[in-house]
Amino acid sequence: MKLQVQVSIVDVSTTKKVPVQDFKDTTFISRDTILSCHLGVDQHELPDDRGEAIALMSKALLSFLKKRYESGNLVGAVGLGGSGGTALIAPALRSLPLGVPKLIVSTVASGHTAPYVGTSDLVLFPSVVDICGLNSVSRVILSNAAAAVAGMVHGILMESNVSDETATKPTIGITMFGVTTPCVNAVKERLGKQGYETLIFHATGVGGKAMEELVREGFIQVTFSWNFDDKTQDLRQQCLFFVEFLMSHSFVCI
Amino acid sequence: MKLQVQVSIVDVSTTKKVPVQDFKDTTFISRDTILSCHLGVDQHELPDDRGEAIALMSKALLSFLKKRYESGNLVGAVGLGGSGGTALIAPALRSLPLGVPKLIVSTVASGHTAPYVGTSDLVLFPSVVDICGLNSVSRVILSNAAAAVAGMVHGILMESNVSDETATKPTIGITMFGVTTPCVNAVKERLGKQGYETLIFHATGVGGKAMEELVREGFIQVTFSWNFDDKTQDLRQQCLFFVEFLMSHSFVCI
Repeated sequence: MKLQVQVSIVDVSTTKKVPVQDFKDTTFISRDTILSCHLGVDQHELPDDRGEAIALMSKALLSFLKKRYESGNLVGAVGLGGSGGTALIAPALRSLPLGVPKLIVSTVASGHTAPYVGTSDLVLFPSVVDICGLNSVSRVILSNAAAAVAGMVHGILMESNVSDETATKPTIGITMFGVTTPCVNAVKERLGKQGYETLIFHATGVGGKAMEELVREGFIQVTFSWNFDDKTQDLRQQCLFFVEFLMSHSFVCI
Repeated sequence: MKLQVQVSIVDVSTTKKVPVQDFKDTTFISRDTILSCHLGVDQHELPDDRGEAIALMSKALLSFLKKRYESGNLVGAVGLGGSGGTALIAPALRSLPLGVPKLIVSTVASGHTAPYVGTSDLVLFPSVVDICGLNSVSRVILSNAAAAVAGMVHGILMESNVSDETATKPTIGITMFGVTTPCVNAVKERLGKQGYETLIFHATGVGGKAMEELVREGFIQVTFSWNFDDKTQDLRQQCLFFVEFLMSHSFVCI
């Protein structure tokens, strides 16, 4: 099935203003339009300081994407940037809900990505060469990135509204850490038999933060983290005690 | 246009062996098959040491993917892993040529990704939750990742064999670093007018390594890196001198 979506090019430049222009099959959204989403109608001025200008444009892009998404006019977002561009675009894309396709072709995809990705599903696509015009390498990279976004958007639009059997049951977030895997799996299995959905988070890196984020977003109603400080207790006992507790008590939303 | 490709599930487990099984529409490739690619026919034994076993399986996967690609039976590769799984799969996927769709749904996409991505176009797709069964979050993530790979593979298969005008001309790699952007752009413009293709690399992070990699792969025939040590010379003068040099001399392959 062939699907078509309207593609808009969004100008988030902070140096010189790009003149309003329409390309074949795409809409051009000027930076004035983006800025007025955040600052209000007819307010398009950027601060002279480059850092302040970038921070303001990033917030304005966030407001713009939020409005577009909430009005049902956004199915995916793709950015393109070096380290500065990625820092400007990432917070705005990250603010879109989990599952909304979000991707940045970036020079900083191979490096310390946590400041850009955080606990989100933002995909950083390695640019390999610098973002500086078309050449034999960037043509390959940009084609693949565009095809990836097209695939994701196609998937979202084709998605059937299958009802989620577990949607009405409380979801439990559990942290897992290497050696605790067998025990967490046992907890997961037992909770699963009782009809509860579990989400497992790796207790290294951003796993814990991701769990907290999903609690805030309402995906998770109950959490269970190992207490490694209390070494006098057998982990398995703690775990079984916890499951018994869950089975005999009502869940309390946190 | 509807395209169909054969999907194979590859077992790279290093702990217990998964029994050979065929799923609907997919082929299951056992770890014995993978190991025999590297060790030789009928040699399927893994070392007892977990680290050694993972290292061996990683090399075996690399050999398997290489053979599949070289025989024209591979159009893309997608992996799934925590930190251990990502470390096992990444070198094998990275070894596939630039442009071959390669993606890992990974718990370590938000963090220090350079050891996994290196200078390649390997995409790390954040798993958000741990790789541990299906739930309301992982269903969304895995659907998007699968759709992204499907989009990329579709793009590759649909790609028309448009001849690259610049393919027969030497390609020049240039490093760029913030303040040198205007000058590098001037060099690029001037070289472009003469019909040479330029590839720009950010001189921070992995840019320089990526350039070296593309030199080794034969994408780049000439390189130009700024010499920041020599502060007595005007950068613009150096740059113009370089361009004059290029214009008046034959290129020498490095």
